[in-house]
Amino acid sequence: MSQLKIGLAGLGTVGAAVVGMLERRAGEIAARTGRTVKVVAVSARSKSKDRGVDLSAVRWYDDPVELARDPDIDVFVELMGGEGDPARAAVTAALQAGRAVVTANKALLARHGLELAKIAEASGGSLHFEAAVAGGIPIVKTLREALGGNRIGRVSGILNGTCNYILTRMADEKLAFDTCLSEAQRLGYAEADPTFDIDGHDTAHKLALLTSLAFGTQVDADSIYVEGIRSLTLADLEAADELGFNVKLLGVAVRTDEGIEQRVHPTMVPKGWPIAQVSGVTNAVAVDGDAVNLTLVGPGAGGAATASAVVGDLIDVAKGNRGFAFGLPVSALEPCERAPMQRHGGGYYIRLAAVNKPGTAATIAGRMAEEGISLASIVQRQPARAAGAKTVGPEDVAVILITYATTEDAVRKAIDAIEADGVIVGRPQVIRIEKD
Amino acid sequence: MSQLKIGLAGLGTVGAAVVGMLERRAGEIAARTGRTVKVVAVSARSKSKDRGVDLSAVRWYDDPVELARDPDIDVFVELMGGEGDPARAAVTAALQAGRAVVTANKALLARHGLELAKIAEASGGSLHFEAAVAGGIPIVKTLREALGGNRIGRVSGILNGTCNYILTRMADEKLAFDTCLSEAQRLGYAEADPTFDIDGHDTAHKLALLTSLAFGTQVDADSIYVEGIRSLTLADLEAADELGFNVKLLGVAVRTDEGIEQRVHPTMVPKGWPIAQVSGVTNAVAVDGDAVNLTLVGPGAGGAATASAVVGDLIDVAKGNRGFAFGLPVSALEPCERAPMQRHGGGYYIRLAAVNKPGTAATIAGRMAEEGISLASIVQRQPARAAGAKTVGPEDVAVILITYATTEDAVRKAIDAIEADGVIVGRPQVIRIEKD
Repeated sequence: MSQLKIGLAGLGTVGAAVVGMLERRAGEIAARTGRTVKVVAVSARSKSKDRGVDLSAVRWYDDPVELARDPDIDVFVELMGGEGDPARAAVTAALQAGRAVVTANKALLARHGLELAKIAEASGGSLHFEAAVAGGIPIVKTLREALGGNRIGRVSGILNGTCNYILTRMADEKLAFDTCLSEAQRLGYAEADPTFDIDGHDTAHKLALLTSLAFGTQVDADSIYVEGIRSLTLADLEAADELGFNVKLLGVAVRTDEGIEQRVHPTMVPKGWPIAQVSGVTNAVAVDGDAVNLTLVGPGAGGAATASAVVGDLIDVAKGNRGFAFGLPVSALEPCERAPMQRHGGGYYIRLAAVNKPGTAATIAGRMAEEGISLASIVQRQPARAAGAKTVGPEDVAVILITYATTEDAVRKAIDAIEADGVIVGRPQVIRIEKD
Repeated sequence: MSQLKIGLAGLGTVGAAVVGMLERRAGEIAARTGRTVKVVAVSARSKSKDRGVDLSAVRWYDDPVELARDPDIDVFVELMGGEGDPARAAVTAALQAGRAVVTANKALLARHGLELAKIAEASGGSLHFEAAVAGGIPIVKTLREALGGNRIGRVSGILNGTCNYILTRMADEKLAFDTCLSEAQRLGYAEADPTFDIDGHDTAHKLALLTSLAFGTQVDADSIYVEGIRSLTLADLEAADELGFNVKLLGVAVRTDEGIEQRVHPTMVPKGWPIAQVSGVTNAVAVDGDAVNLTLVGPGAGGAATASAVVGDLIDVAKGNRGFAFGLPVSALEPCERAPMQRHGGGYYIRLAAVNKPGTAATIAGRMAEEGISLASIVQRQPARAAGAKTVGPEDVAVILITYATTEDAVRKAIDAIEADGVIVGRPQVIRIEKD
């Protein structure tokens, strides 16, 4: 039986889990692939650290780029992370040498995926990244292979477990954002500096990859509109609940007449959607195709789940199932024509902290009408009801508007006019509503 | 660009949808695979019927077995259905000739899948059947490829849209089973003779395939315990709702110490599970692995969804991604050691129509205790409350028991004893509870 020789860079939680899974499942993987799949060389920061797996028989490299160039490996597995070097240099070196590369590095791929796919095609290498998007959910394979007959109109997902954990706890336990963030940090679900997760950047990286896979376009992370969950209050979540929605941080990519709309923002999702019920650190991805609407729900992070995706890719490599990184040859990927966010069309939830005096609601409704915005409802809440809203003072009232389908541009103009009227205080809250 | 030449047997809704999708998406599929994928020969009952697709340029066969032997096809697509001939003979002929076969035929595979996989391996052919289980949901690929690193403990699913449609309407609109079945028939969701669907046999066929893929065992449809949804009443669904469950017809395969338990029956599923929220004709499959718990939700039937699965398989074939039919070579598939249903362990919902006299509840509780069954609750309902229950006469009361984990055997013995005591009338209703 021939051997598939792996060089693995990065021995954190995921790297150790990959080594463990390959050992534990060696017989089964050999039966599936007809090959023994074996880690023969590694690189990591510390050689002495106990990782719970036996690495005594493998070659050690201090430099992952040197590991990537080792002529005696077939696959380079990159689990270091980071969009720059050494990850980028190492992956580039392995691909240039015609190797298969398996990586979980979404930041690297969101920035340099197209360039890396090109190198792979030119050299006869291949690039696999199931673990880079939604961890243990096989959404890359699903888009790249299974749904190949579909014309896809929308792909959307809960792609960041930290945010979903925070939003779930806020909604279920009526807690403030800061409390839930601290709790997530205490439990290891959020970093000490949570910016990257809660401001939506991690979701944006993953969305950039999904967009390319779903629409056959070049990866374009820069054209994503990104808004995080910091400004969400319990009052917003409670209002959403009453209206039949859950609030989720979604990454959404939609094919529109204007081009591809890519956006990351808190979203009101109808409770009946499978994705609305996804709680805690769990991830979910929904794909709307012309033939199939599919939702996949599973773990988005963690050593075992990410290792499962890496090992799935390794099994493909061992079987000779390589394929194009983004489903199509790079030459066939179209430029990602950006649909401007101002043209985004949909319903909106708008919460304003308004000055408590007669005529305020009329002023607000008037400004909406001027922009051609139809209101599904306008509700004015007494201070006591608005207790969860940070920006509402004792003398102010919360005004909650739900609009019918309108545009981002119209909403922004209306809010600017309302602000100029001096009838609101603090920062208006705007949450987009996602519907069929 | 080389051509992948398809011979397609069966031009019903799915067959026509496959032809249409291959035409509509020809450019994209060619880019993905590097080949033109084209139907060159077909067989169907009527040559003259208008199917909305242009078949003027293809060769026609009256006999699908002859089509399967056509030396000028690369892939045989079987969409005729039926576990016997001509489907079996045609698939056998194509595999013997070393062709790739793509089929949606669950009955054929549940009965003869192992034998067909053997023929494929011997001849260098390959067998693909994404469309045979849960229609547009890529669960075959997910189990066969993506989750290859996992040791799977349980796979379960809503695999029959007809049943789920009926159960959803019963629960949502408080309708009787017969009303919902008629409605399903009127809408084309149920056959004139609905036996195969509502008695669980269709679910069992699909489960047999999932079991093999999940556990690496030989397909064994005969060892599946099968119970359909005919006996479910609105009273059961309402009681489930009050207890925090939805009732679904599930196919469940579990790896136990006793062997593989395969069962199809109405199941009380906790509302918080993604699968519990799946409504209407939609299908869902949940996989519990040691690394990943995954739920996939999507369309289980229909021309477009099934065609999507067939075309996904054709793209794999065109790319040379063949693999073993059940993930492993036939020689590595273990016999499916049957865990007897009497040993099934779990919680139970039991509804009895009891004679309305003092001491009845005590008798029932006593018989349960004799079998070592712990009761989580025992509720006795006055006739008015039990209106939905068919078997309850004006003088009887419904007694609803919820047990803690016990065994099928204990429950059956206790019920037999209660029946012998003469304190109940009609047929006891037993619904198994599925929990983590």
